[in-house]
Amino acid sequence: MDKVKVFSPATIANVSCGFDTLGVALDDLGDEMTLTKRTDNQLVITSIQGADLPTDPDRNVVSWVIGKILKDINTGTGVDIEIKKGFKPGSGLGSSAASGAGAAFAVNELLGRPLKTNQLIAYAREGERLVSGAPIADNVSAALLGGFILVRSYEPLEVISLPVPDNLAVAVIHPQIEIQTAAARDILPDQISMSSAITQWANLGGLVSALYEGDLPLFGRSLRDVVVEPHRKKLIPGFDQLKEVVMDHHALGFGISGSGPSLFAFCEGMSKARELTQLMQQEYVHTGIEAKVYASVISKLGCRLID
Amino acid sequence: MDKVKVFSPATIANVSCGFDTLGVALDDLGDEMTLTKRTDNQLVITSIQGADLPTDPDRNVVSWVIGKILKDINTGTGVDIEIKKGFKPGSGLGSSAASGAGAAFAVNELLGRPLKTNQLIAYAREGERLVSGAPIADNVSAALLGGFILVRSYEPLEVISLPVPDNLAVAVIHPQIEIQTAAARDILPDQISMSSAITQWANLGGLVSALYEGDLPLFGRSLRDVVVEPHRKKLIPGFDQLKEVVMDHHALGFGISGSGPSLFAFCEGMSKARELTQLMQQEYVHTGIEAKVYASVISKLGCRLID
Ligand SMILES: Nc1ncnc2c1ncn2[C@@H]1O[C@H](COP(=O)(O)OP(=O)(O)OP(=O)(O)O)[C@@H](O)[C@H]1O
Ligand SMILES: Nc1ncnc2c1ncn2[C@@H]1O[C@H](COP(=O)(O)OP(=O)(O)OP(=O)(O)O)[C@@H](O)[C@H]1O
Repeated sequence: MDKVKVFSPATIANVSCGFDTLGVALDDLGDEMTLTKRTDNQLVITSIQGADLPTDPDRNVVSWVIGKILKDINTGTGVDIEIKKGFKPGSGLGSSAASGAGAAFAVNELLGRPLKTNQLIAYAREGERLVSGAPIADNVSAALLGGFILVRSYEPLEVISLPVPDNLAVAVIHPQIEIQTAAARDILPDQISMSSAITQWANLGGLVSALYEGDLPLFGRSLRDVVVEPHRKKLIPGFDQLKEVVMDHHALGFGISGSGPSLFAFCEGMSKARELTQLMQQEYVHTGIEAKVYASVISKLGCRLID
Repeated sequence: MDKVKVFSPATIANVSCGFDTLGVALDDLGDEMTLTKRTDNQLVITSIQGADLPTDPDRNVVSWVIGKILKDINTGTGVDIEIKKGFKPGSGLGSSAASGAGAAFAVNELLGRPLKTNQLIAYAREGERLVSGAPIADNVSAALLGGFILVRSYEPLEVISLPVPDNLAVAVIHPQIEIQTAAARDILPDQISMSSAITQWANLGGLVSALYEGDLPLFGRSLRDVVVEPHRKKLIPGFDQLKEVVMDHHALGFGISGSGPSLFAFCEGMSKARELTQLMQQEYVHTGIEAKVYASVISKLGCRLID
């Protein structure tokens, strides 16, 4: 193959009680990128649409990840890279992960699939290390594997794919504000109460059970975060009002995507997801802050070839 | 029916990372009790074997639970109660729960099953409240439902039954020491580190996944308790040496049953369970403390009629 075109999904990490462990890929939101073989061995970013990102190949996650793979596989391949971002970085929806995962997936397809998925995850984590300083696994794993994933352990990394219930969808609101990573990190306590920890893991157990049982009401009851949300919601104007309005309208649960500012509301069916995006957009007007909204089904699809 | 004979299993609560949430019933260890209808309305404990327990009907869990049920259903039934304890109270193996759950189950069978299982759980919890002051749900739910259970929430109570992988067994050692409930409670910190909490819920997610997948190696990797065990193992002489010997001999995992002093080692197959009980008994000689050992398969059976 001389050319590949790839879709790489947006992802929600820190799904409720699954802080730092549970992530999920979105179907209907993500990035596209096109890789075209060059006759020389250069990596060239020929176009970036949809976000203001570095074109310097040493500073863009896409080229960084591709470069690492090409170096390790030791081919002399050069690649032209076209990037079309479907959503902005700094959203809490895994922008850098979509780029890193998509890049690994795409170059692997271009080269005839020499690498396995766990290797692609490892390279995509290097992209996360480039932009955030730490090789975080949850967004990139969800993007590459699709559906729900659970990071059971680091060192060694173990990522488990979990089932996706039929008819699950999500409504997302992305307030157009910036949350400083340091602020999101520093607002979390180092110590938490034993009782809140027990509540959290009991709910995570229930959530995983619900995914296997395809039990959306149980999934909804388990979508509770008593450890992180009480702190981080203070960084996101209008959180409580949005939560109230979506829960009043039959959302399964509501929470912060990644470290925010995007917020998610799971629900049953795409039609409900669209309704909830409208409700959230309307509700958010009172904050005076702009927001983008997205609706998506949840499926088992991750990075994939498109035409 | 005028007479029922019932088996009620021993149970392990606080299974590793599932502290205060995950419990499991044993197949091959438990109590037997026989209820025989009387012509009057009295509750009489006619025999107790296997443990030194109150014969006063107001102080024995079995008669307490039966009495509450008969009062609420408003029959004038009286019952003779024979109790045969298969293991001693204060073991960490749910002795009072076996009695309370078995009592509720047995009287329900005697009366033609007017009550549903969730109601039996509620009555059995009252037995726990009698002996420990709190209506703990995990041991009694595991005893009544069988297999693995997860208490997702209290208020309202939600108990989830989880699958049992084929060929799962457990070896148990019960050091003949007494652990004061207050000591076991006070040794736990009120606050834990965020990082240990994350490790704990990530492992619980992995454990629940493993049960659905029937994946014993994943089950084993997830059987880690980084929150409670480091503290409570100090109350149980020989803990570290026992853990080392069973893990060297292919146990899936090792931990404290309930609040101890009994310890469990999950493994594959009854033959391995018996081998591990022998190894643990041998290893424990060096402590100078007597210990009983038990081997059991894990199945989906809970309280049941026997002949
Ligand atoms: N291809 C790329 N896609 C996205 N971000 C990139 C890319 N290359 C470099 N970056 C840089 O990475 C940073 C974005 O990372 P950041 O972690 O803030 O966003 P994010 O991935 O959307 O975060 P989150 O984890 O909250 O979803 C920006 O500084 C951006 O310039
Ligand atoms: N039928 C009964 N079976 C067991 N214990 C009983 C019964 N009736 C009353 N008791 C009293 O309950 C207490 C036993 O409860 P305890 O919680 O210490 O043991 P346990 O149920 O084995 O505990 P664990 O939760 O650690 O497994 C003892 O004081 C005992 O006398």
